[in-house]
Amino acid sequence: MIRVGIIGYGYWGPRIARNFHGLNGCELSLICDKSAESLRRAKQAFPDVAVTSDAKEVLNSPQIDAVAVITPVWTHFELAKAALQNGKHVFVEKPFTSTVAQAEELIELGIQKKRTIMVDHTFLFTGAVKKIRELIDAGTLGNLYYYDSTRVNLGLFQHDVNVLWDLAPHDLSIMDHLIQAKPDVVIATGQKHFNGLEDVAYLTIYFHGSVIAHINVNWLSPVKVRTTLLGGQKKMVVWNDLEADEKVKVYDKGVHITNGQGVYDLLVSYRSGDMWAPRIDQTEALGNEARYFIDCIKNHETPFNDGVAGLRVVRVLEAAEQSLKERGKAIKI
Amino acid sequence: MIRVGIIGYGYWGPRIARNFHGLNGCELSLICDKSAESLRRAKQAFPDVAVTSDAKEVLNSPQIDAVAVITPVWTHFELAKAALQNGKHVFVEKPFTSTVAQAEELIELGIQKKRTIMVDHTFLFTGAVKKIRELIDAGTLGNLYYYDSTRVNLGLFQHDVNVLWDLAPHDLSIMDHLIQAKPDVVIATGQKHFNGLEDVAYLTIYFHGSVIAHINVNWLSPVKVRTTLLGGQKKMVVWNDLEADEKVKVYDKGVHITNGQGVYDLLVSYRSGDMWAPRIDQTEALGNEARYFIDCIKNHETPFNDGVAGLRVVRVLEAAEQSLKERGKAIKI
Amino acid sequence: MIRVGIIGYGYWGPRIARNFHGLNGCELSLICDKSAESLRRAKQAFPDVAVTSDAKEVLNSPQIDAVAVITPVWTHFELAKAALQNGKHVFVEKPFTSTVAQAEELIELGIQKKRTIMVDHTFLFTGAVKKIRELIDAGTLGNLYYYDSTRVNLGLFQHDVNVLWDLAPHDLSIMDHLIQAKPDVVIATGQKHFNGLEDVAYLTIYFHGSVIAHINVNWLSPVKVRTTLLGGQKKMVVWNDLEADEKVKVYDKGVHITNGQGVYDLLVSYRSGDMWAPRIDQTEALGNEARYFIDCIKNHETPFNDGVAGLRVVRVLEAAEQSLKERGKAIKI
Amino acid sequence: MIRVGIIGYGYWGPRIARNFHGLNGCELSLICDKSAESLRRAKQAFPDVAVTSDAKEVLNSPQIDAVAVITPVWTHFELAKAALQNGKHVFVEKPFTSTVAQAEELIELGIQKKRTIMVDHTFLFTGAVKKIRELIDAGTLGNLYYYDSTRVNLGLFQHDVNVLWDLAPHDLSIMDHLIQAKPDVVIATGQKHFNGLEDVAYLTIYFHGSVIAHINVNWLSPVKVRTTLLGGQKKMVVWNDLEADEKVKVYDKGVHITNGQGVYDLLVSYRSGDMWAPRIDQTEALGNEARYFIDCIKNHETPFNDGVAGLRVVRVLEAAEQSLKERGKAIKI
Repeated sequence: MIRVGIIGYGYWGPRIARNFHGLNGCELSLICDKSAESLRRAKQAFPDVAVTSDAKEVLNSPQIDAVAVITPVWTHFELAKAALQNGKHVFVEKPFTSTVAQAEELIELGIQKKRTIMVDHTFLFTGAVKKIRELIDAGTLGNLYYYDSTRVNLGLFQHDVNVLWDLAPHDLSIMDHLIQAKPDVVIATGQKHFNGLEDVAYLTIYFHGSVIAHINVNWLSPVKVRTTLLGGQKKMVVWNDLEADEKVKVYDKGVHITNGQGVYDLLVSYRSGDMWAPRIDQTEALGNEARYFIDCIKNHETPFNDGVAGLRVVRVLEAAEQSLKERGKAIKI
Repeated sequence: MIRVGIIGYGYWGPRIARNFHGLNGCELSLICDKSAESLRRAKQAFPDVAVTSDAKEVLNSPQIDAVAVITPVWTHFELAKAALQNGKHVFVEKPFTSTVAQAEELIELGIQKKRTIMVDHTFLFTGAVKKIRELIDAGTLGNLYYYDSTRVNLGLFQHDVNVLWDLAPHDLSIMDHLIQAKPDVVIATGQKHFNGLEDVAYLTIYFHGSVIAHINVNWLSPVKVRTTLLGGQKKMVVWNDLEADEKVKVYDKGVHITNGQGVYDLLVSYRSGDMWAPRIDQTEALGNEARYFIDCIKNHETPFNDGVAGLRVVRVLEAAEQSLKERGKAIKI
Repeated sequence: MIRVGIIGYGYWGPRIARNFHGLNGCELSLICDKSAESLRRAKQAFPDVAVTSDAKEVLNSPQIDAVAVITPVWTHFELAKAALQNGKHVFVEKPFTSTVAQAEELIELGIQKKRTIMVDHTFLFTGAVKKIRELIDAGTLGNLYYYDSTRVNLGLFQHDVNVLWDLAPHDLSIMDHLIQAKPDVVIATGQKHFNGLEDVAYLTIYFHGSVIAHINVNWLSPVKVRTTLLGGQKKMVVWNDLEADEKVKVYDKGVHITNGQGVYDLLVSYRSGDMWAPRIDQTEALGNEARYFIDCIKNHETPFNDGVAGLRVVRVLEAAEQSLKERGKAIKI
Repeated sequence: MIRVGIIGYGYWGPRIARNFHGLNGCELSLICDKSAESLRRAKQAFPDVAVTSDAKEVLNSPQIDAVAVITPVWTHFELAKAALQNGKHVFVEKPFTSTVAQAEELIELGIQKKRTIMVDHTFLFTGAVKKIRELIDAGTLGNLYYYDSTRVNLGLFQHDVNVLWDLAPHDLSIMDHLIQAKPDVVIATGQKHFNGLEDVAYLTIYFHGSVIAHINVNWLSPVKVRTTLLGGQKKMVVWNDLEADEKVKVYDKGVHITNGQGVYDLLVSYRSGDMWAPRIDQTEALGNEARYFIDCIKNHETPFNDGVAGLRVVRVLEAAEQSLKERGKAIKI
């Protein structure tokens, strides 16, 4: 039985709590938040779980095996570090940390303490991403040309991080999972219109080889869009996460170019075949991920979304932030 | 009666021909193309119009008052220059020229010769762009925050220009028409996967002030997208050019941020009101533009889409091309 | 404080329970279901509420003021009758009863016992229906021409009622609320493909005057559709209940016909103006309805969705059922 | 060389003319219309084709082998009869005739004169219908449960026929082509709001066996809809004719019902698998049909869309019209 304590019961915490609460082999023991109102909601939802406003109670309790850190990003490092030092496994909300250095220190500490670190890259546990990964692994898409994501909506403005740190980690963790090549150079542009934090940002990542990725994140869009295009040599994918049923569409479309003799003898042919929307797993991603966290702890296995995966995302974020501050300066990863 | 000759009867030429052909006060006199097959099609469509394979016939004919240059971009300069030198008005396909220097030379020549130059920025004559311009001029949108366009589809690969020169001129001419501020810095990224020309490109333009613009162009998308978001202080617009009826949607949505006392006392409120899709003019843009070209010649008026407007677009393209070649280097306009 | 007991904790019961549970001036006292598994779920969700497998406990308890009957339709009459006889107010799931005679008897009993009967016509409490009602009341739509609803999806097959009794009550209650004219004649067609219950049905209702209504219900559709068209003389409405944000769209479209002199001199003109999607209330309909039930009891007011409204819906259903059995025979209401 | 004359150059005639004009083995010889303006347009579009305002010229000319009758439905019979009597093949716009008796007389005459009759059921030559027919013939859909079509838009009001005769022939000819069973009973409802002709109509057709078909036609809809659902035992189809690319979607969805022991022991299971949008032929349907007409004449073959097919559609229309006049009376075919 793995006993879990949660620090942070704001927007995302209740969903984390619900998924750990119902899990076999896991006991949700303690919920912590600074806000009395949050604790009242926690008590109402989970009458059988203790609550506290003091994070130290969670971090120090000998009754707790694992700590879920669901707080603002600038607090992740201190909380996760304390938990690891006290011999607890940690589940950390994305992005893992505010800096590369922090991520490296936590990874090192996890190794020393022989404890599991999992970063909450929830999307990797959705049916859509699992299906796209399958298609890539099976060679269905062929060599990848590009990954292009649009993730825009109205709000929710964050107080401590810009739109890049808020929304791009989703795409960065997905890319890290789907694209085999390594990121080489990052260029980020964007603009702030209100409070000193960018509310619109555009991110290009050149990978080693010829894959290019692009992320469009925006807190000021009148409509919500969650669409990703993946262009492959053999097939192309449109993933619209807002569709209820057919989130992933695979297009048998492509381009074939042969060089003729002269400079204008380029012969271009297009292939336009069937479209196919494979059935995808509909189980809740967070439930799958919570289950996987507990299993990794029990079986002493390293999760694929471990601290190192979290570090890879933070490394790109840190570079993107630097690029953004310097109006699109190319930053080598 | 303005007598018009057309050079170039490939993909776009037939549409230009059809629109000049039916026009009052205008006579379509001569169509020129190097391809015998193109001339056969021209003859079939317009039995009353002469054809030739020799551009000089158009450029030198004393029977012709105005020349429409609907050829590949690298030929625009020579053809338009010869036409102007022979005292003819010119209508030039977008983008105006391959370089800033060429555009400047043509503008100068047009002034000397007192002849009209119009660049075919067709979109400025669509009901959608006219409506958005109205909304901006009337102050309905309020201060503009951003302009974000996605223009992707499968093909058509060009032989002589990359995707930036092929698709971005549409957006650059629209921005030039809608955004009052001047572009300051351009950053372009992209990738080539086939024949040495970029097939995917992303363009950020920082304007003086706080407007930011972004263009996503792609020849390798499995789906066609023609969607532009405009974020304003008072209203926000989604323009989906592929919708049959409701191309322009105006959202009464917005964000209001007030600074509280402490750093985390930021108060954010969202406004989410009605959506409104104004009826837009459905007449063919190219017909409106052809009409305007003839009227400007007759009335000795300078069109708003004159050579100077064409130059402004080429200036950004040239900067973007340079940025693209240097992997996103910021280029001052 | 109105103390509420719920009979039936299957698919819809938990939502009813949740909405009464959180309500001021109301206490959810007792939940009844025959299934032990259902009671276990109820206990988990509402640890502070008693449960029982014996409906008589709810019906007879002096501690209970109002009973919500959320059971299969063939049980509504007996349960509601017993509750009323014991002096309790009743909230009955739609459709109110299996027959007109049952509905009339319950209404009579409610009057005798001076108790409130509310039928759960949930849709009347949605922002969409409230907005359409407003538009009609304000004369915005003008005279109504037709009401045309498509409500299809895959499953859920019911064991005891056909697709007409399962899905059409929604539309019948909405029509009853929106259309001022009275239904005159009903024609229903349909087909059964499995178990002796129609899984596809089409219903036409001629109203007095020239309004016509049509309902398309289907348990065998591969896609879910929830779309209603309303044609009015001045404006037309498309209500797509599956849209997240713009459920109700109002079109300034119409037809104007003037008779010329000869039989073929009919002059038809079309008006095609703006489209407008008014912001609609997003609060949960069932919460609004539960609140209204408690308020009606406290204030001794008759709800607009009372037993008489329920009867009007059952009257059309009974006629439609007869028409369906006789392959579309026209049945006078 | 088959020489074709066209009578009727209004809305549809120009498209017919264009498709016969470009055809190998066919010569478009003469175009007839009563309107001088229509003839002017014809002359402009086809300078090489003679025009006339006198139908007799077409009907009597020894230079003409086949006559295309593209006129209002009430004139089809007289014109086609005269053409056949003069030994000409006929291509008749849908619906074939105004009455069953007329259709039967024309068929008889065609047999006597050994001439080809083709009815312009254009949709049967679209890629979408051809693909669905393939799926049915290959057994992919399994036994058909229902066919449900919605064909609504604003206008175009006809002067001489109601919405049933205007729009339903499309669906009736498609059904006739796709559904193997024979129609048994027709029930039609509808309403007229303007000029004495129904502008809204709903049609149910019971086929022998358990297939049911339904058609929703409406001239008063604010939005254009062209969607058909086909439910089969093995697969289900959604055909949206307004989609540019993926008109036909095949869903691997279904229901499996097994009867348990008691009345409530019904076990229902749902199958929800992949969706698949097969690539469909994009060539112009009317071009395919014109080609087929010429080929049938040359090869002395009976087209599948012959007068008998036209008669089957008129038979249902006539019954539907009678049902409509008697407010949904069931009419045996």
